Parts: sequence; structure tokens; C-alpha cells
Amino acid sequence: MRPSARQADELRPITIARQYTKHAEGSVLVSFGDTQVICTASVEEQIPRFLKGAGQGWITAEYGMLPRSTTDRMGREAARGKQGGRTLEIQRLIGRSLRAAVDLKRLGERTITLDCDVIQADGGTRTASITGACVALVDAINHTRSLGLLDDDPMLNMVASVSVGVYNGEPVLDLDYAEDSNAETDMNVVMNDQGGFIEVQGTAEGAAYSRDELNAMLDLAQQGIAQIIQIQKQVLND
Amino acid sequence: MRPSARQADELRPITIARQYTKHAEGSVLVSFGDTQVICTASVEEQIPRFLKGAGQGWITAEYGMLPRSTTDRMGREAARGKQGGRTLEIQRLIGRSLRAAVDLKRLGERTITLDCDVIQADGGTRTASITGACVALVDAINHTRSLGLLDDDPMLNMVASVSVGVYNGEPVLDLDYAEDSNAETDMNVVMNDQGGFIEVQGTAEGAAYSRDELNAMLDLAQQGIAQIIQIQKQVLND
Amino acid sequence: MRPSARQADELRPITIARQYTKHAEGSVLVSFGDTQVICTASVEEQIPRFLKGAGQGWITAEYGMLPRSTTDRMGREAARGKQGGRTLEIQRLIGRSLRAAVDLKRLGERTITLDCDVIQADGGTRTASITGACVALVDAINHTRSLGLLDDDPMLNMVASVSVGVYNGEPVLDLDYAEDSNAETDMNVVMNDQGGFIEVQGTAEGAAYSRDELNAMLDLAQQGIAQIIQIQKQVLND
Amino acid sequence: MRPSARQADELRPITIARQYTKHAEGSVLVSFGDTQVICTASVEEQIPRFLKGAGQGWITAEYGMLPRSTTDRMGREAARGKQGGRTLEIQRLIGRSLRAAVDLKRLGERTITLDCDVIQADGGTRTASITGACVALVDAINHTRSLGLLDDDPMLNMVASVSVGVYNGEPVLDLDYAEDSNAETDMNVVMNDQGGFIEVQGTAEGAAYSRDELNAMLDLAQQGIAQIIQIQKQVLND
Amino acid sequence: MRPSARQADELRPITIARQYTKHAEGSVLVSFGDTQVICTASVEEQIPRFLKGAGQGWITAEYGMLPRSTTDRMGREAARGKQGGRTLEIQRLIGRSLRAAVDLKRLGERTITLDCDVIQADGGTRTASITGACVALVDAINHTRSLGLLDDDPMLNMVASVSVGVYNGEPVLDLDYAEDSNAETDMNVVMNDQGGFIEVQGTAEGAAYSRDELNAMLDLAQQGIAQIIQIQKQVLND
Amino acid sequence: MRPSARQADELRPITIARQYTKHAEGSVLVSFGDTQVICTASVEEQIPRFLKGAGQGWITAEYGMLPRSTTDRMGREAARGKQGGRTLEIQRLIGRSLRAAVDLKRLGERTITLDCDVIQADGGTRTASITGACVALVDAINHTRSLGLLDDDPMLNMVASVSVGVYNGEPVLDLDYAEDSNAETDMNVVMNDQGGFIEVQGTAEGAAYSRDELNAMLDLAQQGIAQIIQIQKQVLND
Repeated sequence: MRPSARQADELRPITIARQYTKHAEGSVLVSFGDTQVICTASVEEQIPRFLKGAGQGWITAEYGMLPRSTTDRMGREAARGKQGGRTLEIQRLIGRSLRAAVDLKRLGERTITLDCDVIQADGGTRTASITGACVALVDAINHTRSLGLLDDDPMLNMVASVSVGVYNGEPVLDLDYAEDSNAETDMNVVMNDQGGFIEVQGTAEGAAYSRDELNAMLDLAQQGIAQIIQIQKQVLND
Repeated sequence: MRPSARQADELRPITIARQYTKHAEGSVLVSFGDTQVICTASVEEQIPRFLKGAGQGWITAEYGMLPRSTTDRMGREAARGKQGGRTLEIQRLIGRSLRAAVDLKRLGERTITLDCDVIQADGGTRTASITGACVALVDAINHTRSLGLLDDDPMLNMVASVSVGVYNGEPVLDLDYAEDSNAETDMNVVMNDQGGFIEVQGTAEGAAYSRDELNAMLDLAQQGIAQIIQIQKQVLND
Repeated sequence: MRPSARQADELRPITIARQYTKHAEGSVLVSFGDTQVICTASVEEQIPRFLKGAGQGWITAEYGMLPRSTTDRMGREAARGKQGGRTLEIQRLIGRSLRAAVDLKRLGERTITLDCDVIQADGGTRTASITGACVALVDAINHTRSLGLLDDDPMLNMVASVSVGVYNGEPVLDLDYAEDSNAETDMNVVMNDQGGFIEVQGTAEGAAYSRDELNAMLDLAQQGIAQIIQIQKQVLND
Repeated sequence: MRPSARQADELRPITIARQYTKHAEGSVLVSFGDTQVICTASVEEQIPRFLKGAGQGWITAEYGMLPRSTTDRMGREAARGKQGGRTLEIQRLIGRSLRAAVDLKRLGERTITLDCDVIQADGGTRTASITGACVALVDAINHTRSLGLLDDDPMLNMVASVSVGVYNGEPVLDLDYAEDSNAETDMNVVMNDQGGFIEVQGTAEGAAYSRDELNAMLDLAQQGIAQIIQIQKQVLND
Repeated sequence: MRPSARQADELRPITIARQYTKHAEGSVLVSFGDTQVICTASVEEQIPRFLKGAGQGWITAEYGMLPRSTTDRMGREAARGKQGGRTLEIQRLIGRSLRAAVDLKRLGERTITLDCDVIQADGGTRTASITGACVALVDAINHTRSLGLLDDDPMLNMVASVSVGVYNGEPVLDLDYAEDSNAETDMNVVMNDQGGFIEVQGTAEGAAYSRDELNAMLDLAQQGIAQIIQIQKQVLND
Repeated sequence: MRPSARQADELRPITIARQYTKHAEGSVLVSFGDTQVICTASVEEQIPRFLKGAGQGWITAEYGMLPRSTTDRMGREAARGKQGGRTLEIQRLIGRSLRAAVDLKRLGERTITLDCDVIQADGGTRTASITGACVALVDAINHTRSLGLLDDDPMLNMVASVSVGVYNGEPVLDLDYAEDSNAETDMNVVMNDQGGFIEVQGTAEGAAYSRDELNAMLDLAQQGIAQIIQIQKQVLND
């Protein structure tokens, strides 16, 4: 029995509100249950120094948590003077995942920065961030195209993410905080809408996991992400 | 004529939504027109080192802007590795202002941290922050009292804030970004609900201002803050 | 009765020694009683990046305190690896105040940096800094003109500053440390020699202050600054 | 055909030299082909603050690369003033992996720090680090036991790691730099000597990878790690 | 011929003004010609963590230059967020030198911090700092003794310093900036009043120097420091 | 009697292994007894900003210690976020010393960075670093010449270094850690192969040292460095 009384293969309610703030070219509030993240996509007509002359664009991401998005208040990273290892790891993951959604040559010499700021955390903030950022990215690209700055659509495919894990000995989908903090294994999976894997990151928290458990978790992730991509597409059609 | 077509003494629509996120002891979303700030109040049963043995509590504040809360994307302070001068100045102002609302002896040996994070900026983020933080503070104190941790109410009075300025030669109330970025003078005023001044900060942006202009701005601020405190009290009664 | 036995409207002895050090284009030692600040004005024939192409110059300021300028030794900011919030706030104030003294277009594409380093602190270091920096600025501009680099005088007016406060219930002028650390209200005022206000920053330290007290403090500041500007002008005529 | 002319399932020559430096309780030089890493295990009779009172020990890791361990010189992280995201990510992975090898309760209230410093890089530095660190860890624990400080052996199992990837469309084992920098997919796998998975991190560098490719890579990793653990055990028996 | 027309073995005018600022237990303004340094000695009744239980005191030093103490304005170290290598090197030298003047056991469990802040630089700022700091140190120790906190005098001897160098092929004493910036060799020597060497630091700036030149420089330093110690003693007797 | 039973004028066994790692243009492992340092020389076809237009090259150095190169583990400087004063002092010394070996004009507009990373420390790491770096530098310059990038040999002379000290009242050569940590005086000397002095840095650790002791130490250093330069030349001839 899961703390939330969900079935093992049941997602939390997932919502994605577009045009959440007014300044960004793409801006959504994504919720995976009580986990809420503001994802904005900002288009800038310049590229990072290391791409000078490469004739392509860039997608990058930054991640943050409001200090009281968590049960106990966390120190503000800006005040401590550096981003922690977990933050850097997550924003690198978000950036890599979304670059896999875009043809960077076709994007042209511009940078899209995906800012994922967690307003309220209840497990799965990185998977919600990737999922929401992809919708914000589509909106930002469409906005850029509507300005006539970009002829071809550089989007290759949608990208979405979900966590899976082994909780009380059973593989489960989309862990909330109550599960996540007690899971034996925690795995984050990123896939595209053609069923391809972008990223698999599975960590044994206590005991090691078997190849069978790994397979069961991957099965759950595949079907969960397929549902999430449906939600993304529906939201983009509204 | 103001860009927003408001009267010189007219506030923007001000709303304060309580219990905006679930973890903090106090949590509001405050809007002054399109300026939106999440203010949370976090209660911790400890005091800063410099107050050891002083037999009192502490109120402090931190302020941040989401990178794309602004028209153009701002660098994330956590990534740059330090908070800028403007940020430090604003969070010091918020902290000072809210300390003036509380009897720190009566608060007991605990710290309340007010985190003000700007989701969307359109002028007046510091005045909205102070106004919202005061409501979050009341909720956090009431929550602490409901737990039986605090007998007497340490709130001395409500505190609220508004900006005033000279725009096109005329003193106006509650400047939005269109006005703020072109004002000759910009003044932030913090007052309590007994008509006392907590803070006055007036800066000539271009030409210096006269004593008469200063007086006219203070008049506007006094009546504007009186209205804002009405809104705070109404929201707290709901 | 003030600790210094001064009248409520009486300034401390104010002296400004010009050409205090030999390298800077302008260099003064300013004393407000026991508060002593070295103010240097350095002219550099370049402008900050954000002004490229704007066809104007820039005035900026930095502020520091020698570690033992204070009663107890303060940690050196260079050793701690960052400037504190108070330092940033003060140097932003000094910079803004002096920019109000100069026509930046007429200054041409050069930067003047005002370094205010407190040798000995006894209250009012920021007001002494602004007052001394203005004299150093005039010397630096005259030096630049004497080199034939600058035809028109870009000085618009003199700028000076003083603190006022409410001490033991009475509004007083130019607080020293003994008063400052016990004042109910502390206000720093910056004005120009045409009677215009550049900056007003008033903070209730304990109780809030009334509009009447605010007016009384402004009256004191106006007459005090008028005297200080007399001293500046006299010193520049020597 | 692999650049190194190896078979798809062929490891590079792997050597582990023990007692490589004289001060550390455990110290090895591990080589995966031309990749060379010094791994030291340092035992300290104290625990991090967050474990006070938990009655257990701690294993942590730090990772670095000598500036010229790489083809082009990399900036020294100590000189740049911070560890990059990749470094933090790798040292978090090493720490997590080795904690899965040890019963932290049985370790007692002491900390073992695993320092992995890359002398020469040719792909797979993190997998070599984990593999070498495990041998250094065993030596450090045996040294601690030989001093009579530790009765029971806290080692639960050996841990080793290898990379797998898809290169030119074919799944291959233990990528060197020539392959790694051109692979379509790169996966790092950490397992224990009972065949359990500790960590799986697979990243699509260009195109996404299919479930079949994922399975083929996991097969390769399982057999490669089994061989590496043989080498570890042999070295420890010498 | 030296730029200053001094003899090869001639010091610049050296003055040491005591009680230069009012808060520090010892405070001097030392001048070696146009080089001017404020040296304060601050006594704190605590010791650094690494000396807990050692039953001794500590002497440490910090060094800084006002941004416009030099011909061209230098960036402020506090603003840049770190002390440069030259600064750290100099303050380590000052601290080591002064520790050689004191019996740290007899000092008792207290720390004396010597802050040397250069107001105006014209070569030899580190030698002037050491020389002035020694006088400030004596004053601070005498002040501590006058409070009855310290029975025995912990001063072992006076310490002073001077630079020597090879300029235009000739060994010279006490280089000013015009010489220092063109010298072939620059050597700083610290000695005590019993003729013992505390520190010798000689650097070939261009060509290497011979043993004969080294000897000649040491001869000059010995007689120069003897004179400087006379000045210190005279000043302390006033 | 020295702890190592060496004669007062006896060096430890000194070895210099060339081509120690494969990427750097010059790379050696230098050993002075148990002190082991990897020295690499990296050639980059660019110059630092402050040499733009000067028509010359640059030699610079960086120094680091592996955390467990020492008896007790030292914190990693990259993790602490800055290089300590000792590190900066040593790398400045290495850079200055090696610049004295090269005609920077003849080097052309390129930079050679000498990275000295201590693998195992047993006293004298800075003198081993300078000695090894000089051999790596020669290899890097010869490599650059072999590529046809550099016609004339910019090497002016070989440079080597050794420590001397007073231990148990007797001047001794090449102190190991057991001596170094108990020496009354510690002096590092850098010389070239023509008998010229590049750097002399002598520090009294406890008592001051006399001119006679200074002379005796310099005598030891001169003959020790002569032997070390023989070893460098032999190694380069192999």
C-alpha cells in the first residue's frame, strides 16, 4: 500500500498551466501532485563563447528551490554563495534532456535558458522540471517563429520524465516525498515521444537492486512517460 | 496622464492570497497589479549567535527575484555566487521593517525568516514584499501560538509599504515599472497601522526634489498605506 | 542634554584637508568630529561596459572601514571574501549622491571613482564620506580640466550630507556614535547647494516616528547642510 | 572496429598498485589503460555534524583532475575558486557507490574519505576511481582493524564500475577517450560482487537509445564488472 | 646617482607617529619617505582554534592598500572578493616577523592583530609595515599591562625591516618606488635589536645576483636596520 | 646526528623521471627522497592580457598538494573555494624562478604553465617543484622547437633549488620533514647553473640566526644546487 493509496503504476494528478508569468517567451507552472515548479524559457539572440563559429544554438537550464519549498527551510543558495552539488547535477540533467529535444543547428545562433524554480516540493522535482520545461520550450520556440526569426521548427520531439523506484519491495511509479525518502531504489528516467531513452539514472539507496527490479522499473517508466507526453500534447493543443 | 491611466492617488489592485504553499508556517502570494511576490514566514526554534543570552527572538528577511521575473532575463544570483547590492539592500529593509512590527522579547527565543521571492516584477517589488511578509508573519505567529509555544501575541502593529514618486512633474502613488523607470524621484515609505513612519527612502533619480514635493509624496504615501493596511486586515479576517 | 554637550542644531567641528595623498587626482581627509575619512577621486579614461556608446561618463564610489576604525576590531572585508550589505548600501548611496552633482554627458567618456576609507569612526561615516568625496571630485575635475582634457565644467552643484535623528525624544543634528547607537530614529539627508533633496533615508530604530518629528528632522538637516556647503566652498577657495 | 582494436566486450588492461603513497591508510594507483587515478583512503576518528548521535560512521569522496591530465590543459579548480558541476557530480557518485559497500553502523563513529585524483585521463575516470577507491577502502579498513580500533569487518561487499556505450551503432565495453567523445550513448554502471546494481547512469549523447540497446549495454557491464571484481580480489590477495 | 639623490647607504626620512587613531590599543602612522602606513595593534582576549589548550597567545597580521595609495588605482580587494597572492605573502611575512619579537607563552591566551593599511605607497610598504607594527605592538602590550591583565613583559626584542637592492649595478639601501621598479635585485631584510636575522627575502628581478652582491646588500641592511631601531626606541621613549 | 643519518652536506637521493604522463609537452616525476612531485609544462599559443603588445611570452606556475600527500589529510583547496596563502606564495616563487631561466622575448607570444602537484610530501616540496619544473620546461621548449614553432632556444640557463637550515644548532642541507618541522631556521635557495642567485628566502622559525649561520647555509646551498644541476643535465642527456 502506497502512502498516497495510489496503484503501483499510477501517476499523481499532473497539470501544466501555460503563460503563467508575462515576461518569458515560454512560462508554465507544472504540478506533479503537490510538487509545483515554475518553468520559464528565455530566448536570447546570442550564444555562449564556446560555440562561437559553430553555426548552432544552445539550450541550457538552471534549477533552484525557494527556501521554504521544503518541509524545513533550506538555506538560500544565493546567500550561501554557491549552488550545491545536487542543484548543479539537476540543472545539468535538465539541460542535457532538453537539448535532446531540439535540432541545435536549426535553432540558429540563439540560446534558450530554461529556469526551473521549485515553489513547493513533494518528490520528483527534477522530473516535473523536465516535463514542464519542454512545454515552455515549445512555447518559446513558437513565439520566436511567430516573430519571423526562425523559419523551420527545430523541435525534434517532446521530452518528458518520471521517477520510478522500489518501495516496500515493490516497483512503483512517480514517487512522492513520503515514498522517495523511504525507497530502496530511486530511478529517474527521461524519454522522448518516440519511445527512445534520453537518460536513465538509477541509484540504490539501501540494498542493491537486481536486473529484474531494474527491468520492472523501466517498464513502469515507459508507460508513465507515455501518459505524461499525452498530457503535454493536450496542453499544447489548448 | 499615468501610463496605467490611474489617478495620481490611486493604488493598483492589491490582492493577498494566504496559505499559498503548504510547508511554511505563513505563506502568501501578494500582488500589486502585475507585481507578484511569494512571501513565506518560517519559524525556527533557535536564535542567531549574536543574540545568545539576550532573551529575545529575531525577525530576518531574504529577497530574491526569479531570473525571468523581469522583462529581460537576469543572471541567477546563486549561479553568480553572490547576492547583489540591490538585493542585500532590499532584504535589509524588509527585515528592519518587520522587526518594527514585533515585540522581540515577547517573541521568545525563536527566529522568523521572511522569504520574499518575486515571481513577476512590474515595479514596487520591495513594497509588495513588506506588505505580504507582514501577513505571512501574522499567520506564522498565530500558528506558533496555536501550537501552545507562545502565550502572548508579540505583534505590535501591522506594517505596510508603498512607493511614491514624481512622474512627469506630478507626485503619484504606487508606481508601476513604466513609471518607475522614468520617474524623477522614487520614494519608498513603510508605515504602521498607527500612522507612524518606519522607513522613508527617497532618491532623486534625475533632478533634486523640493521640500514641497517631498511633502506631497509623503501625503500620498500616508493615505495609500492606510488603504493597504485595510486590505491586510480584511484578508486576515477571512 | 547631548553626550557631547552640543546644542540640538549644532554640528561637530568639520574640517576638510585637501591634497591629503599624492597620487590621486583629488584627495581629502574629511573630519566630522572624531569621524575621519580619506576620500580620493580617481579619473580613468574609460567607461563601464554598460555605458558603451552612450556618450557619457560615470561616477561610482567604493566605501571601506579600516578594521580598527571602530571600537572593537571588525573583520577585514577583503579577508572575509565579500563586502557586507551595509558597505554595499553605503557605497551605492555615495555613488548616487555624487552622480547628482555632475552632468555625466559633459564629463565625457571617463569614469571617476570615489574611494571613501574610514580611518576612524564616530558616527556619520557615510555623511562625512559624501561631503568629502564632493570636494575630492571637484579637485579631480579641475585637475582633468587643467590637463586640457575637459573644456566645460561638468559640475552641476555641490552636494553634502548630514545625519539627523531623534535622541531622547528630541530631534538633533549630526549624531556622533554615542547618540547614534541610542537614537530612536536615524536619518541621513543628502542635499545640493540649491536646496534640493538628493536623498532622504530615515529609519525608525525603536519606535516609529511621527510626521511632525520627520518635519523637524528635515528642518535641522536643511540648515546643517547649508553650513557644511559653506565649509566645502571655503576649503575649495583656499 | 574500435579505435583500440579491442573486441566489443573487451576491457582495457586494468592494474591496481597498492601502497602507492606512504601516508594514507589505503592508497592505490589504478589504471584502466591510459587512464590513471591515485585513490587514497583517509581514516579520521570523527563524523560529520549531521551524523552526531546517529551511532554510525561515514564514507565520503572527493575527485579532482590534475590540470594537465587531459589533452588540453584545464583550469585548476582551486585557482578558479570552485569545483565544477561535473566534479561535484562525480564525487557524489563515488561517495554513494562506496557507501553501498560498507555497513556504516559497524564502521563506528569514524569517517573514511576517498580522494580520487586523476593523473592521466583517457576516458572512464569515474569508473576507474570507484574501482580503485574500493581497494583503498579495504586496505584502510584492514589497517584500522590491525590497530585494534574496529572489531567486526564493516565491508559488505566489493564494488566496481565500468562504462559501456553505443559506438558506431554497436554496444561496447569500457570506452576510452577516442570512443567516449564520439559515442552515441554513454552509460556508467556500478555493481557489487553479488551481482546487484548500485548505480546505472545512461545518457544519450546524440540520438536516444532503445530499450534493446539499453539491455545490451547492461549485459556488457555485468560481465565486465565481474572481471574487474576478480582483479580487485586478486590484488587484495597479493 | 639615485633618483632621490640619496647616498647608497642613506635611509629616507623615517617618522613614526604614535596614538594616531583613538580606538586601537596601539596605533601608529609610519612614514618611510612618501610611503605611509597606518599600523594598529588590536588586543583580543581569545586565541585561534588551533591553539586551544596550548597555553600561549598569538600574533597575526593583515595588510591592505587603499585603492588609490598607488600611482594608478588598484581594484579594491574586498570588492574583488579575495586578497591577492602579494597581499597574503606580505601579511604572512609581517605576522611571522612580529611573532619573533614576542614570547607567546608569556603573552597569555590572547591575540594581537596587527593591521597595516597603506595610505600612500612609494616603495617599501612591507618594511615600513613591520617597523611600524612593532611600535604599535609595544604600545598595545603596555596598554594591556597597564590594565593589570599581563604581569611580565612578553616583548623579547624590537624588530625592524628595510629593503636593499642592486640599482644600476650598485647596492643601495631603502629603495623608493622609482628604484624598486627598476632594480635588478630586491631584498627585504627583517632583524631584531640584537643583530639577529628574522627573515631574508632576496629576489633577482632581472639578472641573477652574485654572492658578493648578496653580501654587500646584507651589510647595508644591517646598518640600516640598526638606525631604524634607534628611531623606534626614541619614539617609544617620547 | 640527522634523523636520516645523512651528513650535514648530503642531499637525499634525487631522481627525475621524464615523460611521466602523456598529454603534457613536458612532464616529469621528481623525487627528493620521499618527496614526490609531478611537474608538467603546458604550452599555449596565447599570452596573458597584461602582455598584449609587449612582444614577449610568459612563464607561470601553479602548485597544489593532493589532500593525502601529507601525514594528516589536508582539506582540498578546490573544495574550500580558495588557494591558501602558502600555496599562492609557493606558486609565485616557482613562476619567478623559472622566468629567470628563460628569455621571454625569444620565447615568443606563448605561455608555458608549470603545474607542480605534490603526490607525497616529506619536506622540500617547493625546491623539488622548481628543480623538476625546470626539466619539464626544457622538454616543453624542445617539443615546441621540434614542431618548428620556435627557432632560437629561449633557455638562458638551468635553474634548481634546495633548502638549507639550522637543525640542532648545525647548518644542514636538503631538510626532510622530520628536520624541517624542528629546524630553528629554514632557508630556500634558488640558483642558476652559472652560480647566480635567483632567490634566497630564509626564515627564523624560533630564534633569530646570525650572519655566520646565514653564510654557512648559503655555502651548503651553493654546493648542493651544483650537484642538483648535474642531475638535471644528466637526465636531460638520457
